[in-house]
Amino acid sequence: MGDHIRLIDQRRLPEELVLVEVHSIEKLCELISELAIRGAPALGAAGAMGVALAWVQGRGMVETASLLKATRPTAVNLAWGVDRALAAGDPVAEAVQIAVDDVALNQAIGAHGTAVVPDGARVLTHCNSGSLACVGWGTALGVIRSAHVAGRQPSVWVDETRPVLQGARLTAWELQQLGIPATLVVDSMAGSLMAAGKVDLALVGADRIAANGDVANKIGTYSLAVLARHHHIPFYVAAPTSTIDPATPAGSHIVVEQRSDSEVVEVGGVRLAPEGMIAQNWAFDITPAELVTGYITEEGISGRIH
Amino acid sequence: MGDHIRLIDQRRLPEELVLVEVHSIEKLCELISELAIRGAPALGAAGAMGVALAWVQGRGMVETASLLKATRPTAVNLAWGVDRALAAGDPVAEAVQIAVDDVALNQAIGAHGTAVVPDGARVLTHCNSGSLACVGWGTALGVIRSAHVAGRQPSVWVDETRPVLQGARLTAWELQQLGIPATLVVDSMAGSLMAAGKVDLALVGADRIAANGDVANKIGTYSLAVLARHHHIPFYVAAPTSTIDPATPAGSHIVVEQRSDSEVVEVGGVRLAPEGMIAQNWAFDITPAELVTGYITEEGISGRIH
Repeated sequence: MGDHIRLIDQRRLPEELVLVEVHSIEKLCELISELAIRGAPALGAAGAMGVALAWVQGRGMVETASLLKATRPTAVNLAWGVDRALAAGDPVAEAVQIAVDDVALNQAIGAHGTAVVPDGARVLTHCNSGSLACVGWGTALGVIRSAHVAGRQPSVWVDETRPVLQGARLTAWELQQLGIPATLVVDSMAGSLMAAGKVDLALVGADRIAANGDVANKIGTYSLAVLARHHHIPFYVAAPTSTIDPATPAGSHIVVEQRSDSEVVEVGGVRLAPEGMIAQNWAFDITPAELVTGYITEEGISGRIH
Repeated sequence: MGDHIRLIDQRRLPEELVLVEVHSIEKLCELISELAIRGAPALGAAGAMGVALAWVQGRGMVETASLLKATRPTAVNLAWGVDRALAAGDPVAEAVQIAVDDVALNQAIGAHGTAVVPDGARVLTHCNSGSLACVGWGTALGVIRSAHVAGRQPSVWVDETRPVLQGARLTAWELQQLGIPATLVVDSMAGSLMAAGKVDLALVGADRIAANGDVANKIGTYSLAVLARHHHIPFYVAAPTSTIDPATPAGSHIVVEQRSDSEVVEVGGVRLAPEGMIAQNWAFDITPAELVTGYITEEGISGRIH
C-alpha cells in the first residue's frame, strides 16, 4: 500500500476476480460491512491497513480505529489488526508486516495441521477459511492445502454456507484453483454424510476464540460440532493465535453479529420468501470448547487453548 | 377431476398462485419430478388421480402406475395412492375419496397433535408439511394450525430448507395466510436457536416411515433430530398412517432419491458456485426411530410405530 489499499472484491467471486482500490476509510468500512473483504485474518490485515491509510492521510487515527472496529463486532482479528497498527510507530510498516506474517503463520498452521489429515481423508469444511479469508494460504483450508501438497490426497465436502454462500462461492473456487477434489453440499446434508461414514474429519476456521476455548465462527459451525460429536468424528479448529482473545473469558461473552434479513430472503436479487416475511440472521454461532477435538495454530496442535 | 386434473404449481409460489390443468400422464409425471406438486400426502392423491386419468383415457393402467411410481422413489404415499386407485373398481371415485379422506385425516392429526404443543410454544419446522403438501390442512404444519385454532398461540421457526427452499417459499407463505407468527432462518441456524433456549419442540412431516419407526424426510431432518436430542428438545413426526410402509423393515432399506446438481448450484437462474463445481444432492435423509420422541398420526400419538 501507498496512498491506497488494493483488495479482491469477494462479492464478485466466483464470476469475476475484481480488484478494488480503496482511498478512504468510509469506503473501507463499507467494503468490510458488505463482506467484499471478509475472513478473520484478512480482516486483521485490512484493519491495520485502514489505520495506516488514516495515518498517511493525516486523519484522526483513534476515530478511524473506532469506525473500523464497529463494522464487524464478532471477528476479533479486525480489532487486533487495528490496535497493532495504532500502537506502532509506523502504521504502514506494521500493516505490511502483519500481511507478510499472516502468510507465514498460515503455512505454519498448515504444516502442523497436516498431522491430523490421514491419507485420502474426506474433510468436511464450512464457510471460507482459505487464501481469500487471509492474506494468503488459508487457515482450515490452508491445512487441507498443506496436506494436499504433502501428498495426503485429501478430498473436501464443501458446505455451501448459507446465507452468504462463502462455501459455494469462495471455497469451491479456491479448491478448483488448487486442483483439490471437492463436492458441494447444502449445509443440512452434513449430518447425513457423517451418518453414511463419508466424513473422516471436520475442519473449520474461527472468528474469535475465547480464553476458555469456546469458538465463534460462521453460523452452522456449532451444528457441525454437535453432529461430529454424535458420530465420533474429529472436529478441529484452525486459526492463528491472534484469533484467541484473552479478554473474552468464554463464548457467552462474545457479541454475535446480527445481519440483515435481506441476506436470507433473497439471493442475487432473486426473492426466496414471500414479501413481508421476517428472518433472523445470526452471522455466527458459538461452539463450546468441549466439542472441539483440537486447535491448530502456528504454534502446533493443542486439545486445549491453555 | 373429470378428464383432467387441476393442481397448484408449487414452483410458482410465493410469487403467484397458479393452477395447472393436466391432461396427460406424461405431463403429470413431469410436474411431479419437477416438484410442481410435492409433499407426501399430496403425492398420494396425485398418484391416484393419475391412475384415474389413465382409466378415463382408456390407457394401460399398470404401465401408468410404473411411470408414476418411478418419478419419486422415496415418498411411499405416491405408490400407496397409485396402488389404491389401481385396485379400485372405479379409480376416479377412489381418487376423489383419497382426496376427501386426506383432509379429514390431517385434521385428526392436528387434533391429536395439539396435545404436544404447549401454550405459546416456539415450534421449529423443516420443509413444507402444510396444505400444499397435502390435499388440505397439513400434517406437521396442520398440527401447528390446529394448535393455533385451539388458542395455543404457537410461533414458528421456519427452516428455509435448502436446496429447493420449501420452507422459505411454501411454509412461510402458508403461515402468513394463516396469520401464525413465523420467522425464517437458514437451516444451519437451528442448532443455535436450540442452544439459546428458543425452541420448545421440533415438528416435521415424513415421506416414508419404515416398520421399525425410522423416518425418511427432507434432507436436514436427521440433523435436526440429532440437535434436538443434544438439547433435550422433543422431536415429533406428524404423518398419516399411509406414510408407514410395513414392507420396509428399517430406514436402511429406503431408497434415497438423488436429485440434480442444478438445485444446489443455482437458485432461480442465479448461479451460486463456479462453473464445473460438482454437488451431491440427496433429497432426503433417514432419522432413526430412537431420535423420534413421538409419531402423530390420525390414530393418536405414539412413542413407537408398533
